[in-house]
Amino acid sequence: MTVLADTWCNILNDFPAYAKRGPAPRNLETARGGRNADVRPQMTLELFRQSNQADCAEIPIPDPVLELYSLYRPTPLIRAKAFEEALGTTSRIYVKFEGQNAAGSHKLNSAIAQAYYFKKAGVERITTGTGAGQWGAAISWACSRAGLDVTVFMVGVSYRQKPLRPVMMRVYGAEIHESPSEVTEVGRAARIADPQCLGSLSIANGEAIEIARSIPGARFAVGSGENHVLLHQTVVGQEALLQMKEIGDFPDVVTACVGAGSNFAGISFPFLRRSLRAGKAVRIIAAEPVACAKLTRGIYAYDLSDASSTTPYVRMMTLGRDVVVPGIHAGGLRYHGTSPLLSAMYQDGLFEARAYRQLQVFETAVLFARATGLIVAPESAHALCAAVDAVREAPAPISVLANISGHGLLDLSSYDAYLRGEMDDGLPDETMIARSLSLLRQRNEYAEAI
Amino acid sequence: MTVLADTWCNILNDFPAYAKRGPAPRNLETARGGRNADVRPQMTLELFRQSNQADCAEIPIPDPVLELYSLYRPTPLIRAKAFEEALGTTSRIYVKFEGQNAAGSHKLNSAIAQAYYFKKAGVERITTGTGAGQWGAAISWACSRAGLDVTVFMVGVSYRQKPLRPVMMRVYGAEIHESPSEVTEVGRAARIADPQCLGSLSIANGEAIEIARSIPGARFAVGSGENHVLLHQTVVGQEALLQMKEIGDFPDVVTACVGAGSNFAGISFPFLRRSLRAGKAVRIIAAEPVACAKLTRGIYAYDLSDASSTTPYVRMMTLGRDVVVPGIHAGGLRYHGTSPLLSAMYQDGLFEARAYRQLQVFETAVLFARATGLIVAPESAHALCAAVDAVREAPAPISVLANISGHGLLDLSSYDAYLRGEMDDGLPDETMIARSLSLLRQRNEYAEAI
Repeated sequence: MTVLADTWCNILNDFPAYAKRGPAPRNLETARGGRNADVRPQMTLELFRQSNQADCAEIPIPDPVLELYSLYRPTPLIRAKAFEEALGTTSRIYVKFEGQNAAGSHKLNSAIAQAYYFKKAGVERITTGTGAGQWGAAISWACSRAGLDVTVFMVGVSYRQKPLRPVMMRVYGAEIHESPSEVTEVGRAARIADPQCLGSLSIANGEAIEIARSIPGARFAVGSGENHVLLHQTVVGQEALLQMKEIGDFPDVVTACVGAGSNFAGISFPFLRRSLRAGKAVRIIAAEPVACAKLTRGIYAYDLSDASSTTPYVRMMTLGRDVVVPGIHAGGLRYHGTSPLLSAMYQDGLFEARAYRQLQVFETAVLFARATGLIVAPESAHALCAAVDAVREAPAPISVLANISGHGLLDLSSYDAYLRGEMDDGLPDETMIARSLSLLRQRNEYAEAI
Repeated sequence: MTVLADTWCNILNDFPAYAKRGPAPRNLETARGGRNADVRPQMTLELFRQSNQADCAEIPIPDPVLELYSLYRPTPLIRAKAFEEALGTTSRIYVKFEGQNAAGSHKLNSAIAQAYYFKKAGVERITTGTGAGQWGAAISWACSRAGLDVTVFMVGVSYRQKPLRPVMMRVYGAEIHESPSEVTEVGRAARIADPQCLGSLSIANGEAIEIARSIPGARFAVGSGENHVLLHQTVVGQEALLQMKEIGDFPDVVTACVGAGSNFAGISFPFLRRSLRAGKAVRIIAAEPVACAKLTRGIYAYDLSDASSTTPYVRMMTLGRDVVVPGIHAGGLRYHGTSPLLSAMYQDGLFEARAYRQLQVFETAVLFARATGLIVAPESAHALCAAVDAVREAPAPISVLANISGHGLLDLSSYDAYLRGEMDDGLPDETMIARSLSLLRQRNEYAEAI
């Protein structure tokens, strides 16, 4: 049986308060609430609407988007028996695998949708920032297919760690810059401030925004964090619900890695809704790197999401925009903050979070690869760590569903470093974290005071 | 509907003469026919039987093999409409895509079967040679899963062009050597003969055979060329027949690339049988590189398949074992000869062949990637070239099925070279080809004479 979900799950319908509270951006410098017109000059009306509407529970996926989804969806949901055996557990571990499409990750789900809406709105070029390059590859192909030009700024450290991913984007016809680059003010400023700058998603996005504002017909697109991106990704969880039903099992625990949040929201929102509406409790665990532990160590505060300061302050779980995240191989999880919507939900206790060190992540990834053959992205391996914890800590056999956001074939140099014993544990500089959090608290207190 | 083929198509049943004639190896030095005991000391009885039996048309796939096949089969058979549009053709182009499994290519189909039969026969370690590394990756995982150790010799030029593929094998727990290596007599001799040696499948296999013969419990496995490997790959064509039926179309032309022949045989044998038994004519086209054009430029003669001279002389379409093939990126097509069975069939006019230059191959691959998102292996792109020729030359719209043997994600550095304009056309040294063919003719005439 083919199970193809044809709607996105709009979680704002379950929590209408977030639709109002969620975005609520502020300008800390002026202590004014940002107006929408200031806030998202780059978003098309339809995407803006998707980010804020609470009135319908399910949003129909447009036919042209569904048609492209059908090239690779439904994605596999398989029981990883060989992995269970390798762990010696009697629990059932399922994985939902989003790495089997051409672009290699879940990012394609939103890339296709965004390319569709932008094209429909008359946009000619998309600019964007990408971390490990999964989003960059996805939007490059989606734009190529939709007949849109695309300019990608890829975080420097990932660009060098994963040299084949920018090639992939070029194959799809995209223009790629290593960020910080020399082609924008934001990039040049970052290079002057730190000539050895590893780069960050906040700088890459800042560069992309600058370019979008300077070229007529160009718009900035974002691969995660915003509500509409989270919404598009719920096709993953919608489909997984149907597949679990077909299998005749239901997960006690759902795990996913969290960067800016779209992968995590994609699998978990539909399960959260099922849990709320059908009274079937599901424990949802967000897995993050110790290197960038915004959920387990960050604070809930107003902060900037990009280095260009053109985006408004948003309230989110964050380590502060001044934090310098170690160059871990899970480049997609190096963003200092996370989605405002998810952050609010985390504050309200709707899910848990765990942080993992880099070596444990790769140890788990190699164990999984030998058992199942699947070489997963370092980001996705965090979800496997959380799944392993869940079955090990359970007093009795349970059912766990781990979301594998992408394959790791273009991350094999990272696996190489691990197998050679040349990988560090990805621990952050504690002094720097303390300083960043302190700066963040000061800014927020100042804004409260005036 | 899920279409999962549960039998392999034994083409020897359609052409029993080949079962006798096909292997018929000779020792040119002694002018004696080789005895079976000399010939394949490394093959298990069951695989040997599969290589020679003509009595049954369909061979049931063993359950444990089917179970592992079901992890990734059926593989997609999709109509590449966007590629048709890019070509401006009204013909229908279908692609069967074997690159979606964990190991990344069709090679897994035989790797799983061989690991099963070797394990059952009590073997403990597999040794093998691999060209571009698709076979090496597949056998590494299949052995890891079956609990067998594995030693892989990978052709040097491919090892350097595709550095992530040996990493993949290491992730699966394999021991990898760049060939020619220092660990075997065969390898050392090749290095002495030519310190700049690019390596070849014949040397890599020679090294693997040497190791297999020196370690108790070790056996040599081969990724293509032998009849049993061709047999295992027919699961691809068996499945494609079912899928074409489900779609309600039937190909006028089937194309596939040919190296040692397993990919080509895998898709084409079932269609050839259908064509013979149901009277539905199918044109079958083998696509090879101009760099190594054994079908279109080679001769049908006795030749050695490996550099160690431990394997017997077999009659095949070959450029001669002394030919030095340019270091083209389609490393899997660099073997100087091809399957004896396919060679005999080619002599009998059962299929056609076309040769393509490297730049045309990559031009087609990039066009295909932008249209469909799929980045295919350079080997597989040859099949696309043949498909494009077929639709362009057809006087009226036709239906073409191209077999895509694997993905090209670990070949992206080749795409990079192409996009940067740093790729050559892969043309062979004409003097060297003439010399190799002349030497080959002399050896064969000598053997005929005594």
